[in-house]
Amino acid sequence: MDTLDIDHVGVAVENLEEAISLYEDKVGMKLVHREDLPDRGIKVAFLVGRDGKTAVELMEPMNHEDQNNTVAKFLKSRGQGMHHLAVKVEDIESSLRDLEGKGLTLIDKKPRKGARGHLVAFVHPKSVMGLLLELVQESH
Amino acid sequence: MDTLDIDHVGVAVENLEEAISLYEDKVGMKLVHREDLPDRGIKVAFLVGRDGKTAVELMEPMNHEDQNNTVAKFLKSRGQGMHHLAVKVEDIESSLRDLEGKGLTLIDKKPRKGARGHLVAFVHPKSVMGLLLELVQESH
Repeated sequence: MDTLDIDHVGVAVENLEEAISLYEDKVGMKLVHREDLPDRGIKVAFLVGRDGKTAVELMEPMNHEDQNNTVAKFLKSRGQGMHHLAVKVEDIESSLRDLEGKGLTLIDKKPRKGARGHLVAFVHPKSVMGLLLELVQESH
Repeated sequence: MDTLDIDHVGVAVENLEEAISLYEDKVGMKLVHREDLPDRGIKVAFLVGRDGKTAVELMEPMNHEDQNNTVAKFLKSRGQGMHHLAVKVEDIESSLRDLEGKGLTLIDKKPRKGARGHLVAFVHPKSVMGLLLELVQESH
C-alpha cells in the first residue's frame, strides 16, 4: 500500500436532506459536493471540516426497500451510522494487488468509478475485523 | 464549533494485538501510541497513515464480559467495526456549550481526560443520526 491517509468516513442516513442540515447547521461542517450514483443506487453528499480535506460522505439509498442495495440493507439491519472508512492511495491497482497478495478478500477486484470521478474499490470487512475499507485514488 | 477536522476513527476489536498486526502488516498503517485507559475499561492503540495525522484508534475492552463497559457491549451487540468518529476542536468547553445550545444531547457535559492526555467528550448518537461523535481538544 502506498499511502493510507483518511479520505472520508461514509455514513448511512435515512434522509440526506435532513442529514446535510444537521451536519451543516449543528455539527458545523461544510457541504462541498453532491452527487447521485445510480450504479450504486445511492445519493451522496460530501462535507468537510476547516482543513477542507477530511470529509464525511453522507449516503442515502434511492430506494429504501431495495434489499439488493447494500446501503438500504445496512440501514435496515444496523440503523443509521458509520458505514465505511475510505483511505487515499496513489495507485489503486497496485494497492489492490498488494492487499490481495497479503490474503485480504476484495469486494472489487478491479477499481470502478466512484463519487467525485475518483477510482474506488472496497475490501471485504471480514478481512479487516469488521471494518469496510474503501480505497480511493483521486482523479487528476 | 470552532474546527471540525477528523482526529481519528475509533474501531472496536476483539483482540488488540491481532488488530495491531493486521493494520500494520496488511493494511499498512503505523503504530504510534498505546495506552491503557482503566477509567474506561479499555486498552487502545493509535495508528496513522503517511501524513502522520489522521488516525485509527483500535479499542479492546479489558473485560469482554463486563456489560457495563460500552465497548464490550458494542462488540456483543454489533460485532467488530467502527465505533465513533472523533473530530478536533480548539476549545472543547465552548464547543460543548455550542452543541448543547443547538439542542444536541451530550454524553459528557464536561470534558474528561482521554487517551494521549487530550480532553475529550462524547455527543449522543441519537443527536447525530446514529453517529457517536467525540470531540478532542489536544493537550499542548
